[in-house]
Amino acid sequence: VSTSLYAVILAGGGGTRLWPASRRQRPKQFLPLAPGGHTLLGATVARVLPLTPLDRILVVTAADQAAEVRAALPDLPTANILCEPVARNTAPAITLAAVELKRRGAAESVMAVLPSDHVVTDDGAFRRVLAEAAAAADRYLVTVGIQPTRPETGYGYLELIEGSEGPARPVARFVEKPDLARAREYLAARNYLWNSGMFFFRADRLLAEVERHLPDVAKAVPDRYAAAPSISIDYGVMEKASGIYAVPGDFGWNDVGSWAALADLHPPDPQGNVRVGGDMVAVAASGNLVVGKGLVAMVGVEGLAVVVTEDAVLILPREQAQDVRQVVAELERRGAKTYL
Amino acid sequence: VSTSLYAVILAGGGGTRLWPASRRQRPKQFLPLAPGGHTLLGATVARVLPLTPLDRILVVTAADQAAEVRAALPDLPTANILCEPVARNTAPAITLAAVELKRRGAAESVMAVLPSDHVVTDDGAFRRVLAEAAAAADRYLVTVGIQPTRPETGYGYLELIEGSEGPARPVARFVEKPDLARAREYLAARNYLWNSGMFFFRADRLLAEVERHLPDVAKAVPDRYAAAPSISIDYGVMEKASGIYAVPGDFGWNDVGSWAALADLHPPDPQGNVRVGGDMVAVAASGNLVVGKGLVAMVGVEGLAVVVTEDAVLILPREQAQDVRQVVAELERRGAKTYL
Repeated sequence: VSTSLYAVILAGGGGTRLWPASRRQRPKQFLPLAPGGHTLLGATVARVLPLTPLDRILVVTAADQAAEVRAALPDLPTANILCEPVARNTAPAITLAAVELKRRGAAESVMAVLPSDHVVTDDGAFRRVLAEAAAAADRYLVTVGIQPTRPETGYGYLELIEGSEGPARPVARFVEKPDLARAREYLAARNYLWNSGMFFFRADRLLAEVERHLPDVAKAVPDRYAAAPSISIDYGVMEKASGIYAVPGDFGWNDVGSWAALADLHPPDPQGNVRVGGDMVAVAASGNLVVGKGLVAMVGVEGLAVVVTEDAVLILPREQAQDVRQVVAELERRGAKTYL
Repeated sequence: VSTSLYAVILAGGGGTRLWPASRRQRPKQFLPLAPGGHTLLGATVARVLPLTPLDRILVVTAADQAAEVRAALPDLPTANILCEPVARNTAPAITLAAVELKRRGAAESVMAVLPSDHVVTDDGAFRRVLAEAAAAADRYLVTVGIQPTRPETGYGYLELIEGSEGPARPVARFVEKPDLARAREYLAARNYLWNSGMFFFRADRLLAEVERHLPDVAKAVPDRYAAAPSISIDYGVMEKASGIYAVPGDFGWNDVGSWAALADLHPPDPQGNVRVGGDMVAVAASGNLVVGKGLVAMVGVEGLAVVVTEDAVLILPREQAQDVRQVVAELERRGAKTYL
């Protein structure tokens, strides 16, 4: 384990895919969706703690979510919460953290940039991959790729150079979300990995790459943050830079990118129903996913996703779980802020 | 209007057909399901008040529901709440009221026995029918029959003697709940009416009929109520007595006997969705019935009944609404008293 490893956890995201549980004021990373009922953010920090102490964990978040971060991570030094004045996607957020490390005299440290809203079920395997990626990051820009298990069209992919070896393998290119036919090819080809959104590089290297590929970001962060363009680190830096390496990982990764994805984290009962968080009566009802407190009683329904919160209930076919965005769009159209 | 008319409102019922809104401690008659958000019991009393003053309205209820009755009817004299020590169905409950009238020196009064948990949308028409039934009750045992509008298999029927005339027509027989084929015959025949559960007779006449047909009931009420057999007035008296008359009624009657029946009281939106009590977002969702507070958002589902309460949500196909009893049976099997 590098003594100079910093974890930079990105916790500024919004997102509507887990509505009605996730709301503007309480997005996904603050929801208790991790095993054991922990918040995703809290579980992310707990997962890296054996590798790097709390004072080397930075959390980048939205200014209006800092209180939620403090509540989820009461032991984190307040100075380690970096606030984005406005949301500008991941490139400015990560640059903000790199500038902070430079300010602390740690420009030569490796930053492990981690999303705060994913689930990992094998923490030990995760830490082994993270240690390998951090080691390679002393020389390269490194990412972690997840071995695909299905022809997923919702993720970007990393194409590895065929025949390459080693824990860290050179990346030929970043691939945008594919259509189903291509996703099937990638799954069969074996040298394509899912882009996990985890990145590893030295702070000084990252700052140099940003200077080169995103001068507007370099100029705006940290003094005029709002002037920075909104751009992802994938698109703004990783796809343009050379010398990108990926460490393949297999540690029970799940991005909880939809209610359907959440179901994969919980064993179904003999009728194929998954219940997260409360009681259920299912009469001639199978294949349903039910989330939220209290009792949900179903008769004669199949394959539904049902999410119950204090003031809202969502019901839709489980395989159309991504259509929750249509509900959110309609609420926005109505200006129904209570429910957003 | 007869000056000696008493209304006897039966409010001791339990029932599970509107679970999860109706619970053991708060059955259907106490739910705000009447137009305007009034309780069914409160609306029943308001409906008869133009015909008979509050001091001639008796409410028969279960001992442990007396507090709910007082809350729903704060102006009702406490002495007019008659408590059944245990539930023994309608024959003992009505006998209890008749004994009370006799005790008050009103044995010659006509009792209008009315369920407390039905909806009537045309109160004026209801009162006209009630006045006719009460007038006929000076001589006969009278009931009100509802002109069928569909081949309903969930109700008992009254067969009228064909060719009879008048506001009150002689009843040939009471008919048990028919199968669909018979229900269709009854609908076509025009001399069959739905049994509404409303009965009209003089108190002394009722007591004489109970003495004759239900001597065990007559003996037990009111001193040893628990010793009375549990038997309905229909089966115990009306089907056995002679000289039964029925007044056909058409006043927007709905027994709210299921969630599906509740839907008939509310206009659907252009997508055929009915929303009672809260907000709704329906995307490619039609023909659903949604009851309860808060927001219910649906995508791509059809013909569901969804009922949301503080601690429980029910979801089932609208046309299987009666299957809620299977949920209640399962909860009873589990001993899940919180939800019952």
